[in-house]
Formats: sequence, structure tokens, C-alpha cells
Amino acid sequence: MRLRNVKNKEEILKGSKLLIINYQDYLGRWKDLFGNDNPLYIEIGMGKGEFILENALKYPNINFVGIEKFDSILARAIQKIEGKEELPNNLKLIRMDAKDIDLAFRKEVDRIYLNFSDPWPKKRHSERRLTSKTFLTRYDKIFKNDCEVVMKTDNVSLFEYSLESLSSYGYSFHKVSLDLHNSDVEDNIMTEYEEKFTKKGIKINYLLAKKDVNK
Amino acid sequence: MRLRNVKNKEEILKGSKLLIINYQDYLGRWKDLFGNDNPLYIEIGMGKGEFILENALKYPNINFVGIEKFDSILARAIQKIEGKEELPNNLKLIRMDAKDIDLAFRKEVDRIYLNFSDPWPKKRHSERRLTSKTFLTRYDKIFKNDCEVVMKTDNVSLFEYSLESLSSYGYSFHKVSLDLHNSDVEDNIMTEYEEKFTKKGIKINYLLAKKDVNK
Repeated sequence: MRLRNVKNKEEILKGSKLLIINYQDYLGRWKDLFGNDNPLYIEIGMGKGEFILENALKYPNINFVGIEKFDSILARAIQKIEGKEELPNNLKLIRMDAKDIDLAFRKEVDRIYLNFSDPWPKKRHSERRLTSKTFLTRYDKIFKNDCEVVMKTDNVSLFEYSLESLSSYGYSFHKVSLDLHNSDVEDNIMTEYEEKFTKKGIKINYLLAKKDVNK
Repeated sequence: MRLRNVKNKEEILKGSKLLIINYQDYLGRWKDLFGNDNPLYIEIGMGKGEFILENALKYPNINFVGIEKFDSILARAIQKIEGKEELPNNLKLIRMDAKDIDLAFRKEVDRIYLNFSDPWPKKRHSERRLTSKTFLTRYDKIFKNDCEVVMKTDNVSLFEYSLESLSSYGYSFHKVSLDLHNSDVEDNIMTEYEEKFTKKGIKINYLLAKKDVNK
């Protein structure tokens, strides 16, 4: 996601009630932070945060953590979300690189959302894709029980790669759609990207993948 | 595949050198029929046979068996293939319904091709799709070692279903393409359907799925 530099981003991040700066302190115990034992869903690369905010508002009995590595994008998300009248208490944000994901969570995540992730089109960068074996190995450490990955992308190459990579790592697909907006997938919450793409007639690819923890 | 009735089809089938009428006799011992121990690739629903003929000519060290249930289609295929100057000795045909596949083969098939199979779009017919669990269970009995399914289809719903069904049955995808003719898949041999669709700009979906026999 590209975004103009946000000038006062440090201030915005510092003053945020949603952002958890010392996320390592909650490793393995996010339920203490949320004060309940509800399922924990995370979104890696939350961008401007529309998707995770709408989820948090719609599903108050699920805890959500949005992850974003770029300060400016995160600052913009915080401005948007904290501008609302009431902050949902089931939503937190983290600023970090996804490669450090296992420094923030341990055996406690129920679902990972990957929305319009960077496709890293060059083959020599394939391990940076969020569905590469390198990342799937990290995810194993953070999932509580079964592993569940929900992915949306307009990028066909990333989608093809993800089908190969996830299935080769033991995931099976409970749902695949090559055209999400003309499918029977219900309750889809659109990201900002998704709205733009869909208006242009670009098809959105979707998958829901699960891996049994015992496999 | 739709085809006009071929009037003298019984005669054509009877007189064919390619067609193996008494296929049950070769259950578990097709290598005796071919007279060698080469890999055995089969195509279920071979239609007019262009795909399997071209394969047989291109890969003389692989044995091919084409399967088709409709007399008229099979008769047309036989007319086409036997009209050539020299018949490849690594190609045989069977007339049967795919649901009887385990009456023809036992622990001896190396690869199954499914090209533009009937999508059976109604949910109540889903078990008739050639990638349904019902069929995958049958395929387990006919594969020699690892299971290998190669599929092409223009039908998006059948493709989505197949990704779900195959992965849920333990297959992983070594290759997936949502646009075969703009992919890095090499040595693709086109079917008659495929040529038509491609000329119309319809994208061809492709997958190569494998299942470890020990899983």
C-alpha cells in the first residue's frame, strides 16, 4: 500500500489508545490484555484498517489485532479509527514487520487474515510472500489449535502461488472462489482496495484454508 | 461433449484395433498388454481423442489409455486415430463409465488426466464430478504409487470445487494456473475444446495435484 508521508505520525502513534507499543509483553497472553478468552483473529498488513475495524464492530465476541509495518499507514488508520465516537474494546493494533510475528503471539491465534498482500512478484523474493513456507512455519507457532488462513487478493500469481504453497504445507481449502463478489461467500467485509478493484471490474480471489494441528 | 449420432458406430467399435472390449481381463496387468513396464497415464473422458493421441505420439515411453463412455464419441475418435498411417502401440481405448474405473485398473496407474470434464453444476449431482470424494476414493485403488491428477477446465465452479475437494482429500498442488496459456506450464497439449475456448479468449484453469500414497 502506498501512502503519502504523514508528518506528525510519531505523535499520532504515541497518543494512540489502540496501538500496543510493547507487544512483546503480551506474548502468549493477549487474553489478559483483552480481559476475556474470546477467539483471536489477526490481520497481517491491515493497511488503513477499514477491514479490521468493521470486523471488530460486527463481531464483538471476537478479539482482533491489526498488524502494519509502515508508520504512515498506521498513523492514518489510527486517525480514522480513533476519530469514531466509541472505540471497540476488542480491537488493538501493532506496528511490526510480519517476519517478527512470533515475537508477538504464541499459541493463541485462531485465524489470520491476509488481504491484498504484497505479491513480491520476483521469484528471488518469493520467501517474502506471506503464504511462503517461511511464513507458514512462523504461523504454526502462533496458532492456538487448528491453523486457519483467510486470504483475498486481486493478484492472480500470488493466488496461484498460495494455493500451491498452502496445500503443500498441509492446508486444505474449505472454500475457494476466483470471483468473490459473484460467489456464495457470505458476510464479506470489503477493504478499501477491494472496493476500488471491484468498481473497475477486477475479480477478487478468495480462499479459506485450514490445517489440522495434528498433521 | 455433444456429438451427433454416428450411424455405423457398432461396426466401428467392433473393428477397432485400439479399443479393448474385454478390459476387465487386464485388471492389474496392463503392462502385459503393452508388453513393457512403462508408466501408465489414463485420460477419463477422452472425447475425440486428440489429446491422448498427441501424447502417445510425443511420449513413446509412456503407455496411454483413453476412456470414454459415449459410443458415438468413441467411434469418431477411433475413425480419426485409425485413419492415421501408423497406430502408436502405446495407446489403447476403453468404452466405459468412469464410475467403473476400478474394474479396469488396479494399482498400476501413474497419472490421471481430466480434461474439460462435465461440471455437473447442480449441487445434488456434485458426487458425479470426477474430482468428488467418491471418485478420489476410486482413484486410490488404481494408482500404483503416488496419486497424480492433472486437470484442465474452463469451468470456474468445477475448478474451485476441485481445489477444495482434492486438497481436503490430501492432495497438494504442485502447479496451479488460472490462465494456462499465459503461464509457465510447458509442453501443454491442447484438446479440441481448449482450442475453441482459447480462440474466444476464455481462460483455461489448470492444476497438477499429487498425493503421497502413505498419507
